[in-house]
Amino acid sequence: MFSEKIELEGHIIDSLLLPKVLDEILTGGGTFTIREIKIGKQPTDPSHASIDVFGPSPEAVDDILRRLRQHGAEVVEQKNVRLVEAPADGVFPPDFYVSTNQQTFVHCHGKWIEVRPASMDCGVAVDLQKHEAQTVKFSQVRKGMLIAVGHHGIRVMPFERSTDRHGVFEFMASNVSSEKPKSAVIREVASEIRLARKSGGKVLVVAGPAVVHSGAGEHFEKMIERGYVNRLFAGNALAAHDIEQALYGTSLGVYLAGGALAEEGHENHMRAINTIRGAGSIPAAVASGVLRHGIMYQCVKHHVDFVLAGSIRDDGPLPEVITDVLAAQRLMRSKLEGVTIALMLCTMLHSIAVGNLLPAHVKTICVDINPSVVTKLSDRGTFQAIGLVTDIEPFLRELTGFLALAESEDHSTHAQAAAVPA
Amino acid sequence: MFSEKIELEGHIIDSLLLPKVLDEILTGGGTFTIREIKIGKQPTDPSHASIDVFGPSPEAVDDILRRLRQHGAEVVEQKNVRLVEAPADGVFPPDFYVSTNQQTFVHCHGKWIEVRPASMDCGVAVDLQKHEAQTVKFSQVRKGMLIAVGHHGIRVMPFERSTDRHGVFEFMASNVSSEKPKSAVIREVASEIRLARKSGGKVLVVAGPAVVHSGAGEHFEKMIERGYVNRLFAGNALAAHDIEQALYGTSLGVYLAGGALAEEGHENHMRAINTIRGAGSIPAAVASGVLRHGIMYQCVKHHVDFVLAGSIRDDGPLPEVITDVLAAQRLMRSKLEGVTIALMLCTMLHSIAVGNLLPAHVKTICVDINPSVVTKLSDRGTFQAIGLVTDIEPFLRELTGFLALAESEDHSTHAQAAAVPA
Amino acid sequence: MFSEKIELEGHIIDSLLLPKVLDEILTGGGTFTIREIKIGKQPTDPSHASIDVFGPSPEAVDDILRRLRQHGAEVVEQKNVRLVEAPADGVFPPDFYVSTNQQTFVHCHGKWIEVRPASMDCGVAVDLQKHEAQTVKFSQVRKGMLIAVGHHGIRVMPFERSTDRHGVFEFMASNVSSEKPKSAVIREVASEIRLARKSGGKVLVVAGPAVVHSGAGEHFEKMIERGYVNRLFAGNALAAHDIEQALYGTSLGVYLAGGALAEEGHENHMRAINTIRGAGSIPAAVASGVLRHGIMYQCVKHHVDFVLAGSIRDDGPLPEVITDVLAAQRLMRSKLEGVTIALMLCTMLHSIAVGNLLPAHVKTICVDINPSVVTKLSDRGTFQAIGLVTDIEPFLRELTGFLALAESEDHSTHAQAAAVPA
Amino acid sequence: MFSEKIELEGHIIDSLLLPKVLDEILTGGGTFTIREIKIGKQPTDPSHASIDVFGPSPEAVDDILRRLRQHGAEVVEQKNVRLVEAPADGVFPPDFYVSTNQQTFVHCHGKWIEVRPASMDCGVAVDLQKHEAQTVKFSQVRKGMLIAVGHHGIRVMPFERSTDRHGVFEFMASNVSSEKPKSAVIREVASEIRLARKSGGKVLVVAGPAVVHSGAGEHFEKMIERGYVNRLFAGNALAAHDIEQALYGTSLGVYLAGGALAEEGHENHMRAINTIRGAGSIPAAVASGVLRHGIMYQCVKHHVDFVLAGSIRDDGPLPEVITDVLAAQRLMRSKLEGVTIALMLCTMLHSIAVGNLLPAHVKTICVDINPSVVTKLSDRGTFQAIGLVTDIEPFLRELTGFLALAESEDHSTHAQAAAVPA
Repeated sequence: MFSEKIELEGHIIDSLLLPKVLDEILTGGGTFTIREIKIGKQPTDPSHASIDVFGPSPEAVDDILRRLRQHGAEVVEQKNVRLVEAPADGVFPPDFYVSTNQQTFVHCHGKWIEVRPASMDCGVAVDLQKHEAQTVKFSQVRKGMLIAVGHHGIRVMPFERSTDRHGVFEFMASNVSSEKPKSAVIREVASEIRLARKSGGKVLVVAGPAVVHSGAGEHFEKMIERGYVNRLFAGNALAAHDIEQALYGTSLGVYLAGGALAEEGHENHMRAINTIRGAGSIPAAVASGVLRHGIMYQCVKHHVDFVLAGSIRDDGPLPEVITDVLAAQRLMRSKLEGVTIALMLCTMLHSIAVGNLLPAHVKTICVDINPSVVTKLSDRGTFQAIGLVTDIEPFLRELTGFLALAESEDHSTHAQAAAVPA
Repeated sequence: MFSEKIELEGHIIDSLLLPKVLDEILTGGGTFTIREIKIGKQPTDPSHASIDVFGPSPEAVDDILRRLRQHGAEVVEQKNVRLVEAPADGVFPPDFYVSTNQQTFVHCHGKWIEVRPASMDCGVAVDLQKHEAQTVKFSQVRKGMLIAVGHHGIRVMPFERSTDRHGVFEFMASNVSSEKPKSAVIREVASEIRLARKSGGKVLVVAGPAVVHSGAGEHFEKMIERGYVNRLFAGNALAAHDIEQALYGTSLGVYLAGGALAEEGHENHMRAINTIRGAGSIPAAVASGVLRHGIMYQCVKHHVDFVLAGSIRDDGPLPEVITDVLAAQRLMRSKLEGVTIALMLCTMLHSIAVGNLLPAHVKTICVDINPSVVTKLSDRGTFQAIGLVTDIEPFLRELTGFLALAESEDHSTHAQAAAVPA
Repeated sequence: MFSEKIELEGHIIDSLLLPKVLDEILTGGGTFTIREIKIGKQPTDPSHASIDVFGPSPEAVDDILRRLRQHGAEVVEQKNVRLVEAPADGVFPPDFYVSTNQQTFVHCHGKWIEVRPASMDCGVAVDLQKHEAQTVKFSQVRKGMLIAVGHHGIRVMPFERSTDRHGVFEFMASNVSSEKPKSAVIREVASEIRLARKSGGKVLVVAGPAVVHSGAGEHFEKMIERGYVNRLFAGNALAAHDIEQALYGTSLGVYLAGGALAEEGHENHMRAINTIRGAGSIPAAVASGVLRHGIMYQCVKHHVDFVLAGSIRDDGPLPEVITDVLAAQRLMRSKLEGVTIALMLCTMLHSIAVGNLLPAHVKTICVDINPSVVTKLSDRGTFQAIGLVTDIEPFLRELTGFLALAESEDHSTHAQAAAVPA
Repeated sequence: MFSEKIELEGHIIDSLLLPKVLDEILTGGGTFTIREIKIGKQPTDPSHASIDVFGPSPEAVDDILRRLRQHGAEVVEQKNVRLVEAPADGVFPPDFYVSTNQQTFVHCHGKWIEVRPASMDCGVAVDLQKHEAQTVKFSQVRKGMLIAVGHHGIRVMPFERSTDRHGVFEFMASNVSSEKPKSAVIREVASEIRLARKSGGKVLVVAGPAVVHSGAGEHFEKMIERGYVNRLFAGNALAAHDIEQALYGTSLGVYLAGGALAEEGHENHMRAINTIRGAGSIPAAVASGVLRHGIMYQCVKHHVDFVLAGSIRDDGPLPEVITDVLAAQRLMRSKLEGVTIALMLCTMLHSIAVGNLLPAHVKTICVDINPSVVTKLSDRGTFQAIGLVTDIEPFLRELTGFLALAESEDHSTHAQAAAVPA
């Protein structure tokens, strides 16, 4: 839905202006919300109304507005966006417009152009020839690019959660605290993941090393094996701990099976990295039979597109790790195409980084035992994220359980269907 | 094991005093630990050794010491405990000895008397006629009681975790953080609970209302049904939320099944309390068919001895709630007899309160998603408590799963045994 | 402000009904908010408007409504409250109305009666003779009392934060996280406290033992000395640790001055309690010169009305501690008269307990280094509470600093005023 | 102190072997600790003693050991370190020794060579020609380098906190919880910083953006102005928020002075980055008068050597930010020379990253309001770090206060000294 705000002044109620305007909107195929009516306190005082006009497209709304103007309705701001040339490579003009992660349009020569992709904390570069607008990061700015400045002629479409069905991403006004029941939410996440897969949406998982430490790796592997993960964004730590676990059975020197400390186990982490560096790459280690299970093994086997982004805490790192953070951001951004659901598991750094890149319409669920991770993600602008304060191992266990259950129900339904005689 | 500390002075190494003393200890059936040997820097300087002598009983150690004294070993402090009359009801003499939760002896007229029950932050009252010593709380003190003062003649036996098997309560030096794998620990807790039941030990559960909010109530019910819970200490909140859930399907107004808010659901909590007050008591509500499931229902059905202790946050409260906190403490203390394992689930207030009452030898595990609860319990003196930072619902789900699994293994073993032909 | 909701149906815009109704409201001295206008999609479809009418008193609104009804405005629900006799002492009738902490009115025989005091999670007892309504706790219910049931005829006035000045309690939509600057907020709290004192409002402090452990006690003492504290609600622990500190210089066995552990310091806590029990009471210990500084000393010296409520964690307790939690709740409730600002410092138990008793108009600020305490207070219904996630020692240091600064400014202003020649 | 472990077997007590050995050690200028004495249970059973021999240098210990061997003392392991060639650039040989952050020696051709610099999670490369050993990161490994493998011939000198004075870094066995008094600790930190400066040690500060958000920036600026900061390691966020604050008075869009939200304030952050990118660098912005206060301004003015390391969360980044994480690690490592004290303020990522690089002898204090940051730093191997769970703004306010106080005391002492007549 596209909208414009109009304002009416004068004796709008006595003079029947208001009813006429509303009638015109409905006639034009639009709808409206009366945001404010201020009635003059004295009969002679002027009144004022502020109305949002909605229509199915920018053109339809423009049509309605043209007619409303004849009734004296004033359309609030519909100026062209102001464009200024970037003064240098990597530098925006002063007062450049800073994007949000919502669907955004700029008004250029009487038309509204959608800015793509929706991404927060970017500038907006407009190509007047091609009639295109795109969000650009600092590093993408080239001298002379036309960049939107100020706030006029820019319209943001607030992302509205659909109200027609009562899924988890709709009814959850806020985060799920540690004290609330979570099974219902996890079941919903499972059905969203299945829905994404059926409709061709991509499932992105952003995961921290606690997925491995906590013993949740095996559940995550199952998700990958069954085809529920399309993209994995992580850091060196997740991959290194996973590979340590695959090679030595330990994670940070702790045997996952029994919880006991391995002798000299803290070294396993370094040896795991060294082994993969010796093999040349993770796929090479899989190919040569050195790496035979674990999350990264499954990613290679099942063609999950993974990005390992570097951080200053990294040991090693593994050969696949992209040590330049701008390059890592660019790569992650390029792999968001088609993502409709994102699971952020136990990593503040990567969750916020990816949250910064995601458009608001991507369904995002953040799982962490620490409530502050969940809170910070929303605070940093990824307001669409739903937080679940819980332990990752039982979360992934239950999630894979729901996914498996749904599959077996599908099978029995198909079997029944097949059994129905013609 | 009982011990005394001895000190040796002089040319203890040259003169062969040390070897003789050590030999004497071994001959007497004791063992020793050399705590400190200070050798004179110059040949003429005297040396010094400090040795702990251990024996199976106070008498055996006394025997050994008598002989060691003939070698010049000086026994460090073995004075009688000093006893002073309590100056008034409820008041200890100044400088009274404050107990720990460890096994403790007082030395009286040449004998060591065990103080019972082991309980921290009490005074020690000695009955010279009966030759008995007991820990007493302020409220139990009566004018003229003989109370131990100072530190002489009092011996504490540090509780030592057995090292002969490698159970969870032995190998866990510290708490299990949220990042560690927990399944192995939970399996161990299950086998400790089964061990307790087999050996006639009582299982105490201390539970907060999050057990209900989080949807873990059904697992807890199963534990009760199968006879794994002997005592339940909780507050008004646990019982009220459980009964709300049993009567209305909500907990704090949230439907547990779907996570949605019930209309006017916040009132259900008050109505649940009112219903039970109307019935007269929880057992009465069970008897009349008003209360037909839930934790409290199962407690009534399966004769779990429960104590509901009041707090200033309580609404209602339910008829069973003991609103006087000293009376509640007394009642809880009286029900600790025979308890060998305590599970503390999601309640800081009750965990610390019960921790204050428990002897150190009771195996104690504290489960909370908030690490600070676990830390505080240890800080407040319940150092034997093992902490598990995790979500309560999956914890109890997995625990009951392990218990059920072990039972079915027992059955199949029995069945096999029965099937063996004579 | 008092309000009623009216509804208009029909051709309310074409027929000029809406303007007439709005005019009538203004003429009658009221104001209005148009909550909803639904305009028929077809010219012949009826429209619908829903309008809140506000007036300075229930009577004024009634007056306006009477006139509006002549225009066809339908007044939404204005039924009498339904009253049912309590079936037994301590038991409400089924379906009893559960109060909130907001200003509430019940409609009885055509009149609106205010329910006093505003207090959450109570029933509402109506005295038809006296034309009075009061909130009653379970324990206050007597058989035969007339209790409000259902929701008809009951009106809650949502507490609205004043918008005329920009104090901390107005602009703070939510809690102050640990990452935000706090000096500005603390300065505002100081000026609210001074404002309360000037206008005769009472300042309530609810404090936990961390006030003493953290070394903040000396600042709190200064607040008391200077007359900024009228009521203190706390538990045995705050008083015991404060007295331990006054008598031995330690808190939980830690020397506050240097942070070092005192030898056998864990016993000081018990000895402090014993000393006061020996003296008979805290005031007796002050009178006899045993207790010569600290928070409790200052409370006695400066006539702060304190309530020490018991909990099952308590050692001792001190003679003043009210060990029956219902008695403690009653006493605290009786001492809320006149309280206009409440500071809740480092205690989850007491903060939630007192939060349950406070009317919504009391300005409430909750200070704790643990964000979950602050969150839980709001979750439990004390939504007016502002949370400050910070360390208590620097908070109280800064607060007393601002109070002292404001005093010295007052003095210099007075001095200047006095110096102005006539 | 250097040490070797020796073992004695046989009738060591009867035969006077033990006294002779101990005497020999003392005569040789060494000292000893008896780690274990196991006396045969039967007179004919052999005994066993394990003794650590300490001496002022490896040579002195070697001397003593040579003589002890004549008494039958067996020196436990003194084999040469095993060296294997690195198989490829960036790859260690399998079974390579993984370093700790403690002082370490490798035994080569009868000599102990110190490994420099002490740094955890590295390999150890030995240059046999130069008789040197150095820790190397994966990226520093070149094919053919001789790398230490296994554990023989490698000796780690456990860092021992000095016991001769009772500073904060000595008496603090563990972290300072949020409930403990902190002033004494902060005063000690101040005197350690002053001590570092007097003795030519460098002070390193590692800081996160919460230093700015919380309003602590002004205190930090004072520390820099007065010369108490030699190195600053931070990320893009600290610098960007500091510069935002310097240019617009806001931090994350919040006005620091009043806590109110700035209109469109969330954009200031991006504009601040853009301004510096436009200027070319932070020093250029200072030189041109664009940047006139704040932390980064003071760093430029007072020649603080700062490193800004990139992360995938970064916006911008600022021109100085090193976007390659390996390059950033290398640069930070190169700037640790001479650092004797490190303050880690409100940043988990940078604290752990720098903790990984620091030798164990650097006094390290970690300040965060979140206890888990402090705990994780120790868990990840920086065990020497002392944690202070508190709010950063009051911490830095108090720290700069103590530093200023000490300075003024110095001045008055000097003034007095100068005033003393000859």
